[in-house]
Amino acid sequence: MGYRYQQLERELIEQISSGRIPVGSKLPSIRLQCQQTGFSKATVIHAYERLEAAGFVEVRRKSGYFVSAQQDAEPGLAAIEPTLPQVMTEPHLIDMSDVMRDIMTHNAAFDIAPQMDKRSQRPVGITDLNRCLARALRQQAGSAHQYYDEPAGLLSLRQQIAQRYQRLGCHVNEADVLITAGCQHGLSLALQSCCKPGDIVAVESPGFYGVLQLLESMGLQVLEIPVTAHEGLSIEALSNALGKWEIAACVVTPAFATPLGSVMPVNERKKLIQLAEQFGFTIVEDDIYADLSFGARQPPLKQLDQSQHVILCGSYSKSLSRELRLGWVIASHGQAALMGLKMVNILALSRFTQQGLVEYLNEGMYEKHLRKLKPLLKAQRDQLIELLFQFWQSLGEIRISQPQGGLALWVELEERFNVAACYLDARRQGIVITPGNLFTAQDQFKHCLRISFAHPWNDQRKEAIKRLGAILLKKGLS
Amino acid sequence: MGYRYQQLERELIEQISSGRIPVGSKLPSIRLQCQQTGFSKATVIHAYERLEAAGFVEVRRKSGYFVSAQQDAEPGLAAIEPTLPQVMTEPHLIDMSDVMRDIMTHNAAFDIAPQMDKRSQRPVGITDLNRCLARALRQQAGSAHQYYDEPAGLLSLRQQIAQRYQRLGCHVNEADVLITAGCQHGLSLALQSCCKPGDIVAVESPGFYGVLQLLESMGLQVLEIPVTAHEGLSIEALSNALGKWEIAACVVTPAFATPLGSVMPVNERKKLIQLAEQFGFTIVEDDIYADLSFGARQPPLKQLDQSQHVILCGSYSKSLSRELRLGWVIASHGQAALMGLKMVNILALSRFTQQGLVEYLNEGMYEKHLRKLKPLLKAQRDQLIELLFQFWQSLGEIRISQPQGGLALWVELEERFNVAACYLDARRQGIVITPGNLFTAQDQFKHCLRISFAHPWNDQRKEAIKRLGAILLKKGLS
Repeated sequence: MGYRYQQLERELIEQISSGRIPVGSKLPSIRLQCQQTGFSKATVIHAYERLEAAGFVEVRRKSGYFVSAQQDAEPGLAAIEPTLPQVMTEPHLIDMSDVMRDIMTHNAAFDIAPQMDKRSQRPVGITDLNRCLARALRQQAGSAHQYYDEPAGLLSLRQQIAQRYQRLGCHVNEADVLITAGCQHGLSLALQSCCKPGDIVAVESPGFYGVLQLLESMGLQVLEIPVTAHEGLSIEALSNALGKWEIAACVVTPAFATPLGSVMPVNERKKLIQLAEQFGFTIVEDDIYADLSFGARQPPLKQLDQSQHVILCGSYSKSLSRELRLGWVIASHGQAALMGLKMVNILALSRFTQQGLVEYLNEGMYEKHLRKLKPLLKAQRDQLIELLFQFWQSLGEIRISQPQGGLALWVELEERFNVAACYLDARRQGIVITPGNLFTAQDQFKHCLRISFAHPWNDQRKEAIKRLGAILLKKGLS
Repeated sequence: MGYRYQQLERELIEQISSGRIPVGSKLPSIRLQCQQTGFSKATVIHAYERLEAAGFVEVRRKSGYFVSAQQDAEPGLAAIEPTLPQVMTEPHLIDMSDVMRDIMTHNAAFDIAPQMDKRSQRPVGITDLNRCLARALRQQAGSAHQYYDEPAGLLSLRQQIAQRYQRLGCHVNEADVLITAGCQHGLSLALQSCCKPGDIVAVESPGFYGVLQLLESMGLQVLEIPVTAHEGLSIEALSNALGKWEIAACVVTPAFATPLGSVMPVNERKKLIQLAEQFGFTIVEDDIYADLSFGARQPPLKQLDQSQHVILCGSYSKSLSRELRLGWVIASHGQAALMGLKMVNILALSRFTQQGLVEYLNEGMYEKHLRKLKPLLKAQRDQLIELLFQFWQSLGEIRISQPQGGLALWVELEERFNVAACYLDARRQGIVITPGNLFTAQDQFKHCLRISFAHPWNDQRKEAIKRLGAILLKKGLS
């Protein structure tokens, strides 16, 4: 029944969610907990840190761990967490499938039943954003259309982004920030700046397919490092790999990594940075989901980065709008090289979209938007879990991740299933799925899939879940 | 006094501009011209084609050459055309200077006295464009912010771009068009699709610094092919080079190539395509300035491309707005590979900017905008030439290109000058120059500079030209 820290963790989650340890109250001190449970200090610390990473508790300096508000737990679900195989093969050049292009062409990476509905209600936060963009267009300097945006991006936007990270304890300033055309663009520039063809790059497995595709197009070798639902990238596996291969970079999403939604505990983050220092590789951090934490917003890995080994990438695409095409790369040194790469790649960005966004941020509209969005996403996550239990009972045992943020669940079916085999059948019924094997270049996760809870569960999407269950039973057992 | 075709060409320009051969009238047939002048048929054809390329005359099928409207000539200037050295060195990896970054950071690639003035009048065409963009924002589907644009770009924009080229005689359709974040982005994707590190790429010399920077960042070897003010890329030099080296691609701007504004005659274009067929290299065509022709809009090289050797890149940045960040790549095959490269690089573009632009194009506003812009640019070009004659007399002999389109002049001073040596002195006075040596990675064009006529010659910019003359005299003769 798992490790001791998991045992303690589950007990505490149950006590917190049942209200036996109420919101705002202090957890027993580490010493007291050791005495009460007989567990070692390391076990208790580990469990407490994981509760913190998951947003159940927060640390108050020199006072201890306190139960957070805004959190509830799913103790029932804790029993059906994914049990990922910890498989690792050698680094290799990869060839991604066409399925990903098909999914993108159908506009459906995050919607099981894509249906961009003109009539659907626009969230207030987006109406506000569009208003800010339109105002920026009206207020534009008369000759602005004749000038390119400066290479680093709009200064006021860089300041906003730097300040936001400063509030999270990061030592960054506007000169470190480079505005990009989204997070994928940032990852692309970051990897170009620290890798040359043939280099080995460590990635999460399962992990973001966009990174796998990027590595493929850059002629970089992929080394997939297993992740766990609770801790993300396995530091142990990475550490072993570093003994065998020379790794140029490690791409990691410490907060709500797609597809599992794992959050790296602080201790694991520290170990990762220590490894980067010891072995001299670059950590490319993908911070795109961190603003979508159902609990407190976690600082990025970059916050712990004293030795400048982390290049931090982020974007407003997931948390605000995929239409903005604005993201950032933060590298304390190497910023000039990144800017050079951006210039030869896309020269510049729209100034007016940046100006509109700055106004939006300045007026606190982004925070307001997030405050509305996050409970919505959480409710949609819960509904999705219910829908799966309701409609997929006949599929046998199902394991589901319990992300405390982000946009998607990871669902593991029994190993006899082949989700990818259902792709075309589902698409014929207007259902677009992201099979588990897209999140790896190794031969695994065929019985898994990612399901997004980014959209409201209207009748069409409920029906899609139901039908998909039937398709999986009919076609997925080949 | 030059070749025979030049002699005939000058005589005809003089007769056309003096009105002795009026607009709409037919030039003597080639046979008759040969009889009257004693020149060979090849000489006459060459001269006629050059007049056509420069927009003085147009060909009517089976009828002959007719004098175009909208043209006037500067016979006085014909005598002071640039005489470019036809230097060519071996292919080599390059290292571009920081000056370019400085120029971009000062927002001044196309403005000698950058001063983005809030109070300056916005052209009607841009107010219209911004209105279309704002309307697209208002009319956006309610959940559009949750969906990425499809990988190839908005279908209706691709159709518009394809139709425009179809009207110019190109066999392209919307499936061949990939929307990009501008022309530089298109060039970047195009070169990625046809070159691997270490490959040799032929470029115009002097030529666009953005291409040189791109080749540097991609680890490609540069082979600079001399250009002439009248014919652009020297086909003879390229042909010789092809005998010596294996060239993977040739980047060429057949219409109003920066910095000289040369236009490749039809015959030279045909020869270029023949060479591509014979030696199996890809032609990457930069069509960004073609819409800014003071005469008729020339078809792209792609129009002659029966054998699919041309990848055509273009953008609305120069002819409409640098704020849009929208361009295109057209490759009849290899489109899937380009789309894959775009996806891993920037994933997608803003849908609303594309939707706004489509409405703008649909309503004929772009053509209307161009009809206003082009005479303005032509007048600004003439004013700039006058300003140079007025203020730079003390600099000795000056040679100036006579572009029949585009945004900039190429100015050759006497060889004793070093323009780049004046860069910082000029910048201290708010003057940003683009010295000739930026347009090459070889040690040449130090006595040259490009001067833009994209902006109105207000007092500040007139003063900048005057002051720059003084700076060149004081600091440029080191």
